[in-house]
Amino acid sequence: MQILVVNCGSSSVKAEVIDVTSGKRIAVMSVDRISEPEPKVKFSGSTEVLTCQGSGHENALAFAFPLLLEKIDKSQLKGVGHRIVHGGKIFDEPVVITEEVEKQIEGLFSLAPLHNPINLLGVRIAKKYFPDVPHVAVFDTAYHSTIPPRAKNYALPKNLIQKHDIERYGFHGTSHQYVAEQAAKFLETDLHDLRLISCHLGNGASVCAIEYGQSVETSMGMTPLEGLVMGTRSGDIDAGVVTYLMEKEGKTWQEISDMLNKESGLKGIAGTNDMRDLEERAAEGDIDAQLAIDMFVHRLRKYIGAYAAVMGGVDAIIFTAGIGENSASLRYKVVQKLGFLRAILDEQKNKMLKFVGVDWVEDISASNSKCKILVVKTDEQLSIAEQTAKVIRESKFKGQPPR
Amino acid sequence: MQILVVNCGSSSVKAEVIDVTSGKRIAVMSVDRISEPEPKVKFSGSTEVLTCQGSGHENALAFAFPLLLEKIDKSQLKGVGHRIVHGGKIFDEPVVITEEVEKQIEGLFSLAPLHNPINLLGVRIAKKYFPDVPHVAVFDTAYHSTIPPRAKNYALPKNLIQKHDIERYGFHGTSHQYVAEQAAKFLETDLHDLRLISCHLGNGASVCAIEYGQSVETSMGMTPLEGLVMGTRSGDIDAGVVTYLMEKEGKTWQEISDMLNKESGLKGIAGTNDMRDLEERAAEGDIDAQLAIDMFVHRLRKYIGAYAAVMGGVDAIIFTAGIGENSASLRYKVVQKLGFLRAILDEQKNKMLKFVGVDWVEDISASNSKCKILVVKTDEQLSIAEQTAKVIRESKFKGQPPR
Ligand SMILES: Nc1ncnc2c1ncn2[C@@H]1O[C@H](COP(=O)(O)OP(=O)(O)O)[C@@H](O)[C@H]1O
Ligand SMILES: Nc1ncnc2c1ncn2[C@@H]1O[C@H](COP(=O)(O)OP(=O)(O)O)[C@@H](O)[C@H]1O
Repeated sequence: MQILVVNCGSSSVKAEVIDVTSGKRIAVMSVDRISEPEPKVKFSGSTEVLTCQGSGHENALAFAFPLLLEKIDKSQLKGVGHRIVHGGKIFDEPVVITEEVEKQIEGLFSLAPLHNPINLLGVRIAKKYFPDVPHVAVFDTAYHSTIPPRAKNYALPKNLIQKHDIERYGFHGTSHQYVAEQAAKFLETDLHDLRLISCHLGNGASVCAIEYGQSVETSMGMTPLEGLVMGTRSGDIDAGVVTYLMEKEGKTWQEISDMLNKESGLKGIAGTNDMRDLEERAAEGDIDAQLAIDMFVHRLRKYIGAYAAVMGGVDAIIFTAGIGENSASLRYKVVQKLGFLRAILDEQKNKMLKFVGVDWVEDISASNSKCKILVVKTDEQLSIAEQTAKVIRESKFKGQPPR
Repeated sequence: MQILVVNCGSSSVKAEVIDVTSGKRIAVMSVDRISEPEPKVKFSGSTEVLTCQGSGHENALAFAFPLLLEKIDKSQLKGVGHRIVHGGKIFDEPVVITEEVEKQIEGLFSLAPLHNPINLLGVRIAKKYFPDVPHVAVFDTAYHSTIPPRAKNYALPKNLIQKHDIERYGFHGTSHQYVAEQAAKFLETDLHDLRLISCHLGNGASVCAIEYGQSVETSMGMTPLEGLVMGTRSGDIDAGVVTYLMEKEGKTWQEISDMLNKESGLKGIAGTNDMRDLEERAAEGDIDAQLAIDMFVHRLRKYIGAYAAVMGGVDAIIFTAGIGENSASLRYKVVQKLGFLRAILDEQKNKMLKFVGVDWVEDISASNSKCKILVVKTDEQLSIAEQTAKVIRESKFKGQPPR
């Protein structure tokens, strides 16, 4: 079964046709700088860069989707899976996108103004080019619907919470779910017998406590701003600092929000959001770069300890995404003080680690480490494809897809 | 040596004359509702309530201090210790209050606009009535000056941090320091050989990681808003929620700040900031009260796990202040999942615990608990008195006190 996965962002669109059974990529397309006059289209396996006729999502995808169609056997394509960032309180699992669902996603615009409108635009355009197969929405937030009230709630006035649906929704759900399943397979243990802490460390970063198969805590909150220090996001911060800066700098909520989301984090401390650059600069003695790394590590270590306390212990710690998969030095630093969790690193294995193919899991813990330390390659597109295929298989809607 | 300790708040002033050697209270005076037309003055050991001539700190203390002077042997009084909330980056230990120091405390008004101006007013009034002895400032923040940069810093743009001296200052330092010292004495172990987690749980609440005698992390931040769920403060919250509420509710930074500081926390969730009431209501099946307690416990447990990770383990967990000293049920809930830290409660000892006098420390851990669980009665006034006496003894200023 082949599934097209569409990940529609504000400045780029990524679309992959994946064979769900084998995990193989049939075609991978990306459109970059979509708002500029001449967006560029690339296909994997080719160095050619094509230029779209016009700018904006409608124009660019009108140019790009037909090219993608040429590369695949359309009769094999059984559905389209869409990454939708925010499912609010409504969606706790993937769903076939009916007109009703589209309206519900629209209703969640104010919770994710930067993401949901663009995600839905992607759905509507894709439905024009692939009208004969069901389209499925896979939500970043859905996996966290199992988080219990004591962890989901903020300590704010009850009436405000209810009026605005304020709670910890959490994000990166697709990735946390995927790497947890991969880890369980690798450990040959039922997911329902494991307490896992998944550290998704990319440009955006979050930690998730997965207790016996369910997300029970996560570091991102109502928005993706809370939690770890990230590429350009502050992560956890005293709300008193936010109001203080508004007072002293005379900034609006919008300006402060932009500052916290786009000018803070690693970039704010050391001028760049790229961990590779930071590691190079730190090695050369750059103090800001060293501080940025130290803060990133310190905060992550605190979350690991905190989530161990939430679950009463931890059986495996998972590192994933750009930084988690690639930075041996960062992994080394994070687990330095975790001996009390009986998590002990095999330094050689950690250093020698090399990527190999998909489905990639490596154990970097020492043989006497009771808590396993794993590096798992995340694959959100494949996970979306799998979840989409599952919904379609189980779906009541046969024949003509629902509109 | 007798020391007068002055704790000057916005609505009340507390003044105690303490014999530092014995810890005995010679006289305890409090002035309440100081801004109302007829503030009330009380002395311990007497049920009489006196009424001040006029309102405001100047008037009320002009009435009250002479009465206090009548109760003591003035020749025994060797100094006055003042609680000053914010010492900024300047003060990392108690100091004799010279005119220079007064100016420096003034310079910190914007970091603690609700506290430092009133604290300083108290100093100036007290200097009039007690001109012949040195006055010493003891700062809530000073104890946390040892927190390393990775924990002190927020991940904000570097220029803003420097411009506004933004960092984690931490509070409750006097209490955390005092209970840590009491715990070390009780355990007959040098403080420098212990990793402690001190949980100060009053109306305001904070946790502190004390590694070999030094504060290395604490949950309150640049302001006392960050960290645990408190009586009326939200504690940790997604900064995205703050800006979201400003947008949706059209509130100013000042209104949002008031809401987060005065209408949130336990009160926001369940309508009251009093843990006793909440426990009673929860026992009767009140769902909001139960949620408020569950959130309080969950967040505290996360901090204990996090600080264990910061120190690579923990030798004793300390409960103190109103809730920590009095609520067996809350202590029971918090340590429920901490077996992985080898912290095991003796449920009987926990339940049977009773206050006895000053200097009160009880071990409520099971005999096989490697990590001790202690309840310590905090005494911030005594600690201020002791610190004041120490400064005076070591001070170069003999004879006429510095002005
Ligand atoms: N070899 C490496 N060493 C350290 N960091 C790396 C390495 N490779 C990639 N990274 C970091 O991974 C981050 C991007 O992660 P990624 O998961 O691709 O982000 P996104 O959230 O944008 O998908 C960047 O900070 C990058 O510097
Ligand atoms: N027996 C008790 N059981 C539960 N909570 C208690 C008990 N006694 C006092 N408290 C709680 O302690 C808190 C006040 O603590 P305290 O240290 O006096 O606060 P402050 O920060 O104002 O000094 C209140 O929430 C109160 O309900």
